[in-house]
Amino acid sequence: MTVSYTTNALSGRARCLNPDNINPHVKEAKYAVRGELAVKAEEYRVKLAQGDKSLPFDSVIFANIGNPQQLDQKPITFFRQVLSLLENPALLDNPEVLRTSFGYQQDVVDRAKTLLADVQSVGAYSHSQGAPIIRRSVANFIEQRDGFPANPQDLFLTAGASSGVSNILNVICSSPETGVLVPIPQYPLYTATLALLNARCVPYHLEEDKAWGTDVNAIRASLEKAKAAGTDVRSIVVINPGNPTGASLSPDDIKSVLDLAAEEKLVVMADEVYQTNVFEGEFTSFKKRLRQLQQEQPGKYDNVELVSLHSVSKGMVGECGQRGGYFELVGFDPLVTAQIYKLVSIGLCPPVIGQCLLELMVNPPKAGEPSHELYQKEYNAIRDGLHKRALALYEAFQRMEGVECQKPQGAMYLFPSITLPQKAVDAAAAENRAADEFYCLRLLDATGVCVVPGSGFGQKENTLHFRTTFLAPGTDWVERIVKFHSEFMAKYK
Amino acid sequence: MTVSYTTNALSGRARCLNPDNINPHVKEAKYAVRGELAVKAEEYRVKLAQGDKSLPFDSVIFANIGNPQQLDQKPITFFRQVLSLLENPALLDNPEVLRTSFGYQQDVVDRAKTLLADVQSVGAYSHSQGAPIIRRSVANFIEQRDGFPANPQDLFLTAGASSGVSNILNVICSSPETGVLVPIPQYPLYTATLALLNARCVPYHLEEDKAWGTDVNAIRASLEKAKAAGTDVRSIVVINPGNPTGASLSPDDIKSVLDLAAEEKLVVMADEVYQTNVFEGEFTSFKKRLRQLQQEQPGKYDNVELVSLHSVSKGMVGECGQRGGYFELVGFDPLVTAQIYKLVSIGLCPPVIGQCLLELMVNPPKAGEPSHELYQKEYNAIRDGLHKRALALYEAFQRMEGVECQKPQGAMYLFPSITLPQKAVDAAAAENRAADEFYCLRLLDATGVCVVPGSGFGQKENTLHFRTTFLAPGTDWVERIVKFHSEFMAKYK
Repeated sequence: MTVSYTTNALSGRARCLNPDNINPHVKEAKYAVRGELAVKAEEYRVKLAQGDKSLPFDSVIFANIGNPQQLDQKPITFFRQVLSLLENPALLDNPEVLRTSFGYQQDVVDRAKTLLADVQSVGAYSHSQGAPIIRRSVANFIEQRDGFPANPQDLFLTAGASSGVSNILNVICSSPETGVLVPIPQYPLYTATLALLNARCVPYHLEEDKAWGTDVNAIRASLEKAKAAGTDVRSIVVINPGNPTGASLSPDDIKSVLDLAAEEKLVVMADEVYQTNVFEGEFTSFKKRLRQLQQEQPGKYDNVELVSLHSVSKGMVGECGQRGGYFELVGFDPLVTAQIYKLVSIGLCPPVIGQCLLELMVNPPKAGEPSHELYQKEYNAIRDGLHKRALALYEAFQRMEGVECQKPQGAMYLFPSITLPQKAVDAAAAENRAADEFYCLRLLDATGVCVVPGSGFGQKENTLHFRTTFLAPGTDWVERIVKFHSEFMAKYK
Repeated sequence: MTVSYTTNALSGRARCLNPDNINPHVKEAKYAVRGELAVKAEEYRVKLAQGDKSLPFDSVIFANIGNPQQLDQKPITFFRQVLSLLENPALLDNPEVLRTSFGYQQDVVDRAKTLLADVQSVGAYSHSQGAPIIRRSVANFIEQRDGFPANPQDLFLTAGASSGVSNILNVICSSPETGVLVPIPQYPLYTATLALLNARCVPYHLEEDKAWGTDVNAIRASLEKAKAAGTDVRSIVVINPGNPTGASLSPDDIKSVLDLAAEEKLVVMADEVYQTNVFEGEFTSFKKRLRQLQQEQPGKYDNVELVSLHSVSKGMVGECGQRGGYFELVGFDPLVTAQIYKLVSIGLCPPVIGQCLLELMVNPPKAGEPSHELYQKEYNAIRDGLHKRALALYEAFQRMEGVECQKPQGAMYLFPSITLPQKAVDAAAAENRAADEFYCLRLLDATGVCVVPGSGFGQKENTLHFRTTFLAPGTDWVERIVKFHSEFMAKYK
């Protein structure tokens, strides 16, 4: 007997749901980082794994997403040792743990015990804002980073930064007229979430020729234009260091944004997940700068509301799959905070093992403690490796015709602009594709290297870009791009 | 210098966000399971932990939420051993792992290696639908459970069942007129999510006097009334076994719901997270029943769309804090499935360690494998303990004046009705509270036992209930409730 369960066209009655009647805001949302190219790359990976020899490459390089441990980054030993004890606490009371060749030190055991005393089990729901002891640790970290106090009650632990962004925007967006200023180019989580919430993205362009800097005049112009169109602009997103640009904001840049926020009553959403991925200069947090300004000019910045987001996924930690992170609310009305609490409580709690990893990230072994030396060595090796790879990729782009790239400053990405011959643009149009998308698809088909077209992040009209991570090891894949590019340019010249 | 960072009333300019201008749908959402009572219980817990002797009890019993490992349920050894190796794969190649007194068996090591070969690292993002090998395992589990095929491409792994519910409802709800049939009483995730999405909850009442059974006539009446009011009813939620009721649906009950779904083009959302928590009779999945009916009457059920949800949080696993689960789509238009994929991809992926735990849950050690005996022993002990506690609590309720309770059938809850004296109802009204809320607050204040008022789940007018888990060990806390109840009744008589 054959019942056709999964055919699209049904012989009998129609289904309830079809692409024309589902939530239109879901349909509008775009998320290119895991879009068509990523799906195709995964298909190639599966083919290769199954022994397919028909492809012109022998490995797929996922340079489309900042996913260090998918490539070759090894997790930091201290973190994983503690997490392994949290998952199997039976080991904690076994004296063999310290005597074996497993490398577990006393501080690993102690930390696991301290965390378990608070969370009871990583299999138990925690407080919806996250376990109290972990929020205390995060507050200490923020205090040490900024030199200003932080309160565990203002901290919400999250499943990566993404869920935090979603929750905050959900509270901010109250009507289809609500607008949020979003940098262009941006990490598409922001535009996707605004689309889902049926709110307006108010784009402001970063300045590519000034190393992707933030120009407050451009923001003001965009804001005024939106207001004139009836948009109730309530918030500004700043990604610092930038994604996809890697740009780092100076204390003066941050002040400009905070000045604007104070004047215009904007909630500042500071996406600071790349705060330790800084190659040039020093990271300044929005919270620190705000507190400095509040000291310098009492009263002027009292009304500023700031959300600062951080994550275990990036930095030298790179533990994307563990889904840990937090946001700090600064200057929020307690009644609004209570609504945010209720909203997150509907999802119960963030993953507890991810919360524990966050604690380890913000409170790593200190000098003199048994695990410190190895921790420091591993941390520095990852940091130096990332910088080296960024520079190698940057230098390769210098060699490529029609490609211009800002010097790597931070984050995990380069975002070069590409100038393509008219024939390539025409060939793309004939396939009903944007030219950068066409280029990236051809790159994937020819080399197995998956990058994301600039259109996925937003770019100025008549410019083309792509975003690539610099996480993949070795130089082979970089040379694949160089070779492909030269052939592509020759073909369409 | 004193800058008041956190005062509610600002001297200078106003903030952007206040309780009157944030998203009204967030404000409308209610989630009593983690509401006022839970917050107060947590405050009591902290007070006791700090040595406070002023309270009339020496421990807080969190009977408000199905959180087994917060109470005394120990995790299953096999699960946690594998997870510990996944977090610290350095151990995998260390021969001492099998030689130590840690109890790691060869099948533990083998499973960890198999999982790692697919996910690479639990710190790497997986496929947005979940790691392929794990979806394959879940499909095998479903096939064995139901006797019908399952396709990994129709499976979406989730961070607990809650995020799955949220994603599915987000796709279904396309306008303020969209309606979803929800059982009353229900787990408040459903009404909360519908409120967030600005869609309509179409309530249908379960039949308390028939062991909280599902009456399809009541559903039809509710559906017709909603349609007459212009509601576009698209889906029906069924929680089986029930939360908060514990009721288990018979194959006939399930057929009635599927008949209705086929006739009325309703997406069936089958919340089956308690599928192994069944004390009486046998669990039948909606998927199995649907496939049976499709075989028996070809054509009639072709258009039925079914979402079946499951989780690692409940059952004998009880690993709430690990945030693992899945949903299976049955009969969906592939283009709608593609939109669901895009939506989940915006959140990147569910926690990978939770995905791995799901794999262990659906594919536990088999008879003859080294870890099987201990696994089976632990599993049975948890199952028997839950049943014993449920019966003890049920028997205590039999002794309480004005309390009526259905015999425990499944899930983790009892949901007794309470009849309170008029004076108690008046005292509650004087505090501007519902009478069941008043009762539960007094119970918490007097005994430290935290339960949830029936109003948090919905109940018929002029009836009062509360939901309590039967997870807490011992009988002391049950006796606290009995004693409180007798004093409460005497006081307000």
